[in-house]
Amino acid sequence: MMKLVLIRHGESEWNKLNLFTGWTDVDLTEKGREEAASGGKLLREQGFDFDICYTSYLKRAVHTLDIVLDEMDRVWLPVKKSWKLNERHYGALQGLNKAETAAKYGEEQVLIWRRSYATPPPELDEDDERSPRVQAQYRETKDKSVLPLTESLAITVERTMPYFEEVIKPDMLAGKRVLVVAHGNSLRAMVKNFDQLSEEEIVGVNIPTGVPLVYEFDDDFKVLNKYYLGDQEAIKAKMQAVANQGKAK
Amino acid sequence: MMKLVLIRHGESEWNKLNLFTGWTDVDLTEKGREEAASGGKLLREQGFDFDICYTSYLKRAVHTLDIVLDEMDRVWLPVKKSWKLNERHYGALQGLNKAETAAKYGEEQVLIWRRSYATPPPELDEDDERSPRVQAQYRETKDKSVLPLTESLAITVERTMPYFEEVIKPDMLAGKRVLVVAHGNSLRAMVKNFDQLSEEEIVGVNIPTGVPLVYEFDDDFKVLNKYYLGDQEAIKAKMQAVANQGKAK
Repeated sequence: MMKLVLIRHGESEWNKLNLFTGWTDVDLTEKGREEAASGGKLLREQGFDFDICYTSYLKRAVHTLDIVLDEMDRVWLPVKKSWKLNERHYGALQGLNKAETAAKYGEEQVLIWRRSYATPPPELDEDDERSPRVQAQYRETKDKSVLPLTESLAITVERTMPYFEEVIKPDMLAGKRVLVVAHGNSLRAMVKNFDQLSEEEIVGVNIPTGVPLVYEFDDDFKVLNKYYLGDQEAIKAKMQAVANQGKAK
Repeated sequence: MMKLVLIRHGESEWNKLNLFTGWTDVDLTEKGREEAASGGKLLREQGFDFDICYTSYLKRAVHTLDIVLDEMDRVWLPVKKSWKLNERHYGALQGLNKAETAAKYGEEQVLIWRRSYATPPPELDEDDERSPRVQAQYRETKDKSVLPLTESLAITVERTMPYFEEVIKPDMLAGKRVLVVAHGNSLRAMVKNFDQLSEEEIVGVNIPTGVPLVYEFDDDFKVLNKYYLGDQEAIKAKMQAVANQGKAK
């Protein structure tokens, strides 16, 4: 039986401001750091341990992982970072206020961009300062055309799942215990795949922040069991809070 | 021309208590965090950038690197951790107070253990809780006999330099800009090699904490230039402070 633990990063500065974040590299808030610490504490208390950790290029995920490893006294574990685990790229919406965007384009259009499976927001210009094709983080990626200028959830799935299949899964098959700390939509990509959800179903899934989500697989990668660690009522309230974020205020 | 930047971790909890630390996994003090931040700030201000970072398994080094990368806005850089970059293992002295040890064994004996090139302190028992052969950090190392129970500086050099030659140097030769955040003695191993110092000379070298040490090499790995970043008078005072640590109080 193989276990995989997923954690969505804690609250970021832009979550708090209700801005579309995407690949914008904003840091955790103090509350976000506390969420990460309580996730790490739960893992330690329940006897979890890991052999390798994966995270994105974005500091809100990297710092969440750092805090989790501090709490587990596992600072020495190997960590691999990949932009394939980044949040969904929000294109030209990045930096805009969610409520303002809803007022401008209509709540319905914003809901489509946030929750439709295949409709990406407007594209960034390739040389926009928000474009990964000009940002230092992505300079190692020589073929710039693979770096997105906007993404739907479908496009996020298409770049996250090959990374899972080609890089993370072989580690699991080799017996390694894997922790992935990532983002709402890169984690949704995996959840869609693991739970064999339809395009309609996955857009309704809200992953709470800072809460370890444990998957147990058999040797054929069928899901045997799936559960969140911690207070189940508090987790439900967190999921509802995420679902409410897109509504105009 | 190839550049390599070395940083010794900032003040740790046990530096402050004047205990022999070695591989004991103690954290940075607040002052140590500030030293790391000012090192990172210097690197950023002087236009340094990196492609890959190396550090040890010990949290005082990993956290120093984390803070440096935060200051440089380079949280996304790849980081490789290896115990081959750990501090010199202090054997049975680990956990003892330096002044008490000096009072017990004599200042001369302590100076020999601290500053002779080839005399290791008394060995730990293999199953001592301070032994890396029983500690979780080193469980991936299947051949336990390579994990030290005590080390002289000579032994530290013998495990650090092959790692530099086989892992770090190829990255540099491939054009990567490398940052190494490690410890007084694993860095001394490199400095001895780069500067072609004798066994007598290297024991007199004191590397200040948190100060970026820049080496510039030609294609044959001859040192072209070597300098510390920052206020040169403050750096000299720091070196003197390290040199005074072994004296009985």
